[in-house]
Amino acid sequence: MTRYKINIEYDGTNLVGWQKQKNGISIQEILENSLFKLSGEKISIQGAGRTDSNVHALNQVAHFDLNKKIKPDSIRDGLNFHIKNLYKKNKISVLNCKKTKKDFNARFDAKERTYLYKILDRRSPPAIQNKKVWHIKKKLNDKLMKETSKVFLGKHNFTSFRSTECQAKSPVKTINSIKIIRKSGEIEIWIKARSFLHNQCRIIVGTLMMVGKEKWKKKDVEKALRAKKRGAAGQTAPACGLFLHSIKY
Amino acid sequence: MTRYKINIEYDGTNLVGWQKQKNGISIQEILENSLFKLSGEKISIQGAGRTDSNVHALNQVAHFDLNKKIKPDSIRDGLNFHIKNLYKKNKISVLNCKKTKKDFNARFDAKERTYLYKILDRRSPPAIQNKKVWHIKKKLNDKLMKETSKVFLGKHNFTSFRSTECQAKSPVKTINSIKIIRKSGEIEIWIKARSFLHNQCRIIVGTLMMVGKEKWKKKDVEKALRAKKRGAAGQTAPACGLFLHSIKY
Repeated sequence: MTRYKINIEYDGTNLVGWQKQKNGISIQEILENSLFKLSGEKISIQGAGRTDSNVHALNQVAHFDLNKKIKPDSIRDGLNFHIKNLYKKNKISVLNCKKTKKDFNARFDAKERTYLYKILDRRSPPAIQNKKVWHIKKKLNDKLMKETSKVFLGKHNFTSFRSTECQAKSPVKTINSIKIIRKSGEIEIWIKARSFLHNQCRIIVGTLMMVGKEKWKKKDVEKALRAKKRGAAGQTAPACGLFLHSIKY
Repeated sequence: MTRYKINIEYDGTNLVGWQKQKNGISIQEILENSLFKLSGEKISIQGAGRTDSNVHALNQVAHFDLNKKIKPDSIRDGLNFHIKNLYKKNKISVLNCKKTKKDFNARFDAKERTYLYKILDRRSPPAIQNKKVWHIKKKLNDKLMKETSKVFLGKHNFTSFRSTECQAKSPVKTINSIKIIRKSGEIEIWIKARSFLHNQCRIIVGTLMMVGKEKWKKKDVEKALRAKKRGAAGQTAPACGLFLHSIKY
């Protein structure tokens, strides 16, 4: 038995997210079905980040075991072939495949995850970037957002910033870095942490958006964090603006 | 009668291009139908660049006349509303609308057009950038492409670099600048000229690709230019990698 590690890029639009669901097609299911076509083995693929429906990934990581010995490059090419064949769409691409040690775990061995959130703040809707950004019709004050984002740095109880359905035992997480950059008319929000609570990035972005609109001040965000109640923070920003950027091991 | 100038962004995928055609929906047609919904006037919109099927635009420019007096901002918002309503897709976005002088002509007054071509040169297919790049499975030598691109600078007879169906009277054009940049795994080719021949950018890119693959040398490209025969140059790069970036007046 050999354990393999793969890197995957995907456009999450109209997929139910990473994890298998009864109500639609998931990235995990597409990959497992393609791997079955390739190897004849019914195996389960574990991903590093369980991205939600409509969330994208530039470099998701996953691992799986195969009895059959197949060259990593042939797995990469074979998966891409079967994904396209089975689903008639180029929405998932296996970037890389490597043999890895038997106890490597894509989810639990991750040392840092980087998420990128994109906001397009202009009057007119996105055409080229449709379903790849959060469209806000008013110009946001990205300087205030940048200044305020420091509130989230470090270790905090993020109860106000997790979905009420979040299953994590502890609401305490550590944000390693948060960067906000204005780039060709878009606002990019980069957040790094070992791990995140459910919807944590999207609620942080939804809250910073209120600051960008100059409706909330830095002290309102500090208050929301202290409140430890979901209702105290801003809205959950839409999934389509979120990208799992990369994972460090 | 008032003349208006609009700026337009679009994702050209599965559209027949800028100009009205019998075999499908064009950007011009979508805009004219939306303008009719808005104003009740059957008018013709003239664009600066007649982009082909599947070519995108970040900032196309067009002009039209209206008898009815409508505020430019209301035209922009109204067009975006009707485009979405009529076509159920966010593929065209009117970025801006302004009143302009009676004799302004989006096509003939243009002083410089900038086109951007994107190549993704990696083994795995694009997922996020699907239909927005030319996918080449081998890493290209972008340094050689950059060095060779200088061949096209200045005034030349571009007969080898225009579609055999090109209707321009003269094959002589002047390339003002050509820049090649490697950017997050992609190669960007930026070309500026007052005007272009049909498929000129795409044939230049298809030829530079042969250099990037190290199958052609700089002298082969010079020879192709001197040959003044379409067959002497490289292939026409696919439409999906091309973006009309901007127009200077």
